[in-house]
Amino acid sequence: MITEMAAKAREASLELARLTAEQKNRILLDMADSLDKNRGRIIAANNTDVGNAVGVIKDSLIDRLKLNESRIDLMIESLRQLAGLKDYVGEIISERTLENGLVLTEKRVPFGVIGIIYESRPNVTADVCGICLKSSSAVILKGGKEAINSNRVLVGLLSRACPVKDAFQLVESSDREITAQMMNLTGHIDLIIPRGGEGLIRFVRENSKIPVIETGTGNCHIYLDEEHDPVKALNIIINAKTQRPSVCNAAEKLLIHKNVGRDFIKKIAGELKERGVEILGCERTQKIIGCSAATEKDWHTEFLDLKIGIKIVDDAEQAIRHINKYGTRHSEAIISNSRENIDKFLNEVDAAAVYSNASTRFTDGYEYGLGTEIGISTQKLHARGPMGLKAMTTTKYIIKGDGQVRE
Amino acid sequence: MITEMAAKAREASLELARLTAEQKNRILLDMADSLDKNRGRIIAANNTDVGNAVGVIKDSLIDRLKLNESRIDLMIESLRQLAGLKDYVGEIISERTLENGLVLTEKRVPFGVIGIIYESRPNVTADVCGICLKSSSAVILKGGKEAINSNRVLVGLLSRACPVKDAFQLVESSDREITAQMMNLTGHIDLIIPRGGEGLIRFVRENSKIPVIETGTGNCHIYLDEEHDPVKALNIIINAKTQRPSVCNAAEKLLIHKNVGRDFIKKIAGELKERGVEILGCERTQKIIGCSAATEKDWHTEFLDLKIGIKIVDDAEQAIRHINKYGTRHSEAIISNSRENIDKFLNEVDAAAVYSNASTRFTDGYEYGLGTEIGISTQKLHARGPMGLKAMTTTKYIIKGDGQVRE
Repeated sequence: MITEMAAKAREASLELARLTAEQKNRILLDMADSLDKNRGRIIAANNTDVGNAVGVIKDSLIDRLKLNESRIDLMIESLRQLAGLKDYVGEIISERTLENGLVLTEKRVPFGVIGIIYESRPNVTADVCGICLKSSSAVILKGGKEAINSNRVLVGLLSRACPVKDAFQLVESSDREITAQMMNLTGHIDLIIPRGGEGLIRFVRENSKIPVIETGTGNCHIYLDEEHDPVKALNIIINAKTQRPSVCNAAEKLLIHKNVGRDFIKKIAGELKERGVEILGCERTQKIIGCSAATEKDWHTEFLDLKIGIKIVDDAEQAIRHINKYGTRHSEAIISNSRENIDKFLNEVDAAAVYSNASTRFTDGYEYGLGTEIGISTQKLHARGPMGLKAMTTTKYIIKGDGQVRE
Repeated sequence: MITEMAAKAREASLELARLTAEQKNRILLDMADSLDKNRGRIIAANNTDVGNAVGVIKDSLIDRLKLNESRIDLMIESLRQLAGLKDYVGEIISERTLENGLVLTEKRVPFGVIGIIYESRPNVTADVCGICLKSSSAVILKGGKEAINSNRVLVGLLSRACPVKDAFQLVESSDREITAQMMNLTGHIDLIIPRGGEGLIRFVRENSKIPVIETGTGNCHIYLDEEHDPVKALNIIINAKTQRPSVCNAAEKLLIHKNVGRDFIKKIAGELKERGVEILGCERTQKIIGCSAATEKDWHTEFLDLKIGIKIVDDAEQAIRHINKYGTRHSEAIISNSRENIDKFLNEVDAAAVYSNASTRFTDGYEYGLGTEIGISTQKLHARGPMGLKAMTTTKYIIKGDGQVRE
């Protein structure tokens, strides 16, 4: 079944590759309208999913599953914004004539067929279909079974607005065997992107034979250096931890230089506790603020919650080593007035995004000016950090000759 | 053991990242000199390997294993050329100030730790060490057991010329379990590149949990269209098939438009046979030239030998479908005078390199002006076609703030 879907997707991808930017933008606006005119159907299907999920999955997951008018607004807005963004398909990266007269052109081309394996959030369905359409790839969506009714209606409405048959196909079976088969279709699916929790991402990384772009896991750190501006420091720490704790670019750990005053550490802890943040500390931290002990596992964990690990470190060097050991290479920040330590941190911390004196919460395609993103890559291959439309293309060498042969 | 090597490689990668372009170029020249001054030791070690291999592995593999003065010259020359190439590490890809005052810079940075899994050819050892040094990554080399003595001497000589300890480490065990462990070290090794036959590449693709760049397999086609220049056509076909049949960019299949004259097809077949090429044909071909039948498996096979499959097709459309079904997305060529068919072929054939009226043999980093290549990528992620120094870097977002937090 999945092989047949992949074959249909390949056919669709050839048609998608022939669309002009104008045609694709028109389709995106039609897709937005199709959702806009059928809000009732979307909400009804989503209510069924939410009803089925109550008592079965965690409340926080139900919140991610739920669609309301404002979340539908966002899906629609996202599709309309995509229509206004640059189309990278067909872009000439370089072109030159070699000494032997061959004309060598490197060009951006669509991936072809993309597989997305994701959980809960049905808004991902609309985002992914929009991004794939704009970058001329066909997509096979394998959503979570908890969102099946919402996804079925969304893919139906989006497909209805798209003249290319099979551009968006939803795998309706919830059988894990189907996911395994999907990850085995080398040559039929060109790229797999998992979106979801750490477990899902690990499962895909460990089992896919198709190239994967990992997205999302963010065990992000803030390092508070000895010399710093205390007002800005407090602001950044509170923002990075509490402004939206459930997302991947929220801070999960705070590393503090040993010479930072005890009073200031108490103040930081107090402000965090006031906002409901639970603190887990290293031995030195526990002595200053009286909190539970952080375990080795905690230093590795992305809490995605109002919870933070605090560790006192000897210097920037130790902070960098801790981050490179425990971090997930997502977003890492230093708060410091020392240019030397800032440069050292920005150079030596191995992550997609490194910050000085700013909140880690900025790692986001929209904030970076890329428009909608398909995810935040935490690997080093192909794309790193927020992945916009450019990351959703590949390249091709086109060589035009006049009978040239190799000597 | 492999975990310890990876930890040492990580330390080395931090030091490598701090080297300037000048320092790296100086080291590359020293590496070249180190090989140049120790030719005797290299040849002696290689003689041991070749002696052990005779009667154990195929003659064609022994040929790939063998080092002589001219092959050593090439290794040395390659290292010296690398010293003259552009250094991409540290290159600023983009830099801009966002509305909120954050300064966002996207920069090229080293991968960190690269693992290479390869077979036979010991010249790969010098090439890979040179390319990794120039791109500031540490490398763990897992060569074939048949080349162990050559590789041990080469890595020793190259390391002696490099002041960064553990920049190049050779896995000396021939245990396949070690290779499996190596491919499991997510977070410790950033990228795995297999170089070798189809079996090795499949093994790595199917078992690695670390991101992989596939290189090499080339079941390349030439499509001879109805309207063409017969002199150029014959030249290109002979060159692509016979100039060096054992390499990945050699042609393996010839597709011929049904209206091409029987006499010209006989002439092509005659010229190929004269050069020792065995022909396997489809039914229509067999009727014209009297040859063995090509099996379904043959259409999929990269022969790497003086052997070619010939198929008569109805039109360019059928040729494109055949290539997209059986090709390995390496190099594909059309010989035609029809601008329409050329454009259709170049657009619709899904491969790293697509040619009109030129030999597929040109797919090569040196020919494309990239300098030495680490391999030819046949996947769509990260790099496609010949991979030079730019493909051996990743990127990082660096964001400098002044206290900014997200609203």
